[in-house]
Amino acid sequence: MGFPSPASTGTAYAATARTTPTRYRDRASYDRALVHAILDAGYVCHLGFVRDGAPVVLPTLYGRVGERLYVHGSTGSRPLRAAGRAGDDGLPVCLTVTHLDGLVLARSAFNHSLNYRSVMVHGTARQVTDEAELRLALDALVDQVVPGRSADSRPASAKELAATAVLRLDLEEVSAKVRDAGPGDDPEDLALPHWAGVVPVGTAYGTPVAADDLTPGIPLPAYLTRG
Amino acid sequence: MGFPSPASTGTAYAATARTTPTRYRDRASYDRALVHAILDAGYVCHLGFVRDGAPVVLPTLYGRVGERLYVHGSTGSRPLRAAGRAGDDGLPVCLTVTHLDGLVLARSAFNHSLNYRSVMVHGTARQVTDEAELRLALDALVDQVVPGRSADSRPASAKELAATAVLRLDLEEVSAKVRDAGPGDDPEDLALPHWAGVVPVGTAYGTPVAADDLTPGIPLPAYLTRG
Repeated sequence: MGFPSPASTGTAYAATARTTPTRYRDRASYDRALVHAILDAGYVCHLGFVRDGAPVVLPTLYGRVGERLYVHGSTGSRPLRAAGRAGDDGLPVCLTVTHLDGLVLARSAFNHSLNYRSVMVHGTARQVTDEAELRLALDALVDQVVPGRSADSRPASAKELAATAVLRLDLEEVSAKVRDAGPGDDPEDLALPHWAGVVPVGTAYGTPVAADDLTPGIPLPAYLTRG
Repeated sequence: MGFPSPASTGTAYAATARTTPTRYRDRASYDRALVHAILDAGYVCHLGFVRDGAPVVLPTLYGRVGERLYVHGSTGSRPLRAAGRAGDDGLPVCLTVTHLDGLVLARSAFNHSLNYRSVMVHGTARQVTDEAELRLALDALVDQVVPGRSADSRPASAKELAATAVLRLDLEEVSAKVRDAGPGDDPEDLALPHWAGVVPVGTAYGTPVAADDLTPGIPLPAYLTRG
């Protein structure tokens, strides 16, 4: 692909001051493969930016293509779209993806925790204006949610492309955080009469429900038979 | 409870400039009961704040008590905790809670969407310093995740309380956003040969896994038999 992309050499992202946590440093990672795996396991992110000096956090879709994230920017926020359009300056953002994996019940209230995998990306988002890159980004957004779906839907028209705001965010200043363990009770609490352990949590997909006006005879696509 | 709280009269929150979306206005709501229901259906939020002029979005726990949210602030962020402690000024935040309910597959790539329920809270977070309120907040955080659990665990010691940072955020400037519908294809696309409909999505809880060092004979508590 002909779009400029950050170098993807090296197995890890470089740590920076703001990607270095002040607590639970052992949970932090800059491993590129781990970051990619966490990003690829989801498609909803929470995108933070600053508007009139105050923070805003929008849930929105993302798609990963190599070392780039594409973010759906038409989320009802005129400032987001305007700022993303502002030429070279771009929009400073923090994009966070979180997967919850377990509820961790300890004997002590204080040591209750969650098991999770999360990725935080700091950077500057810029609106995608090149038509070929915009098409690539839209396919990536659709396929991030349902792999294989972009090839089985009507591609965007020129009018639709013009109405779509997609932001691009390069993966450069990135960290992952993972907790995957049982309860960390203090030794003196181990004999307390409270159940302790982990309740696994995950995302469940139900049986697809066809649209009321679906043309009869169109079968459920193979790519929707997950798991 | 003796802590000052915003008035909870009226069935709706007042809309403000920043809680009024510029697109999909029909998806926005200020209904108090709806907002509470969305908040009560979860326990992980994404908390946005500004650090050195740049946005930061942290996943963390929250608990709701009436018109207050308590947010777990010990998430590895020294600036967050410091700012929350800064007296009357507090920390401007945006707290967003999102539940994904469905993948919406349209015939056109452009009309793909998600069904979801989300709440966005704008306001100023302040660190909880009153010991009684801190205890209430910690119970709320534990019970938000597993209702009934705070009464079945060892309460926090004075030392643990001192080590815990909890932020309080009042529910005043609040909006909900909900999409709950099938695909919105353009009329001219309805006859295209692509499957269209909704894939339901939800959170699934697995069988609880006891800690390796759990005292034999402690049964699984009734409050963990969800659903």
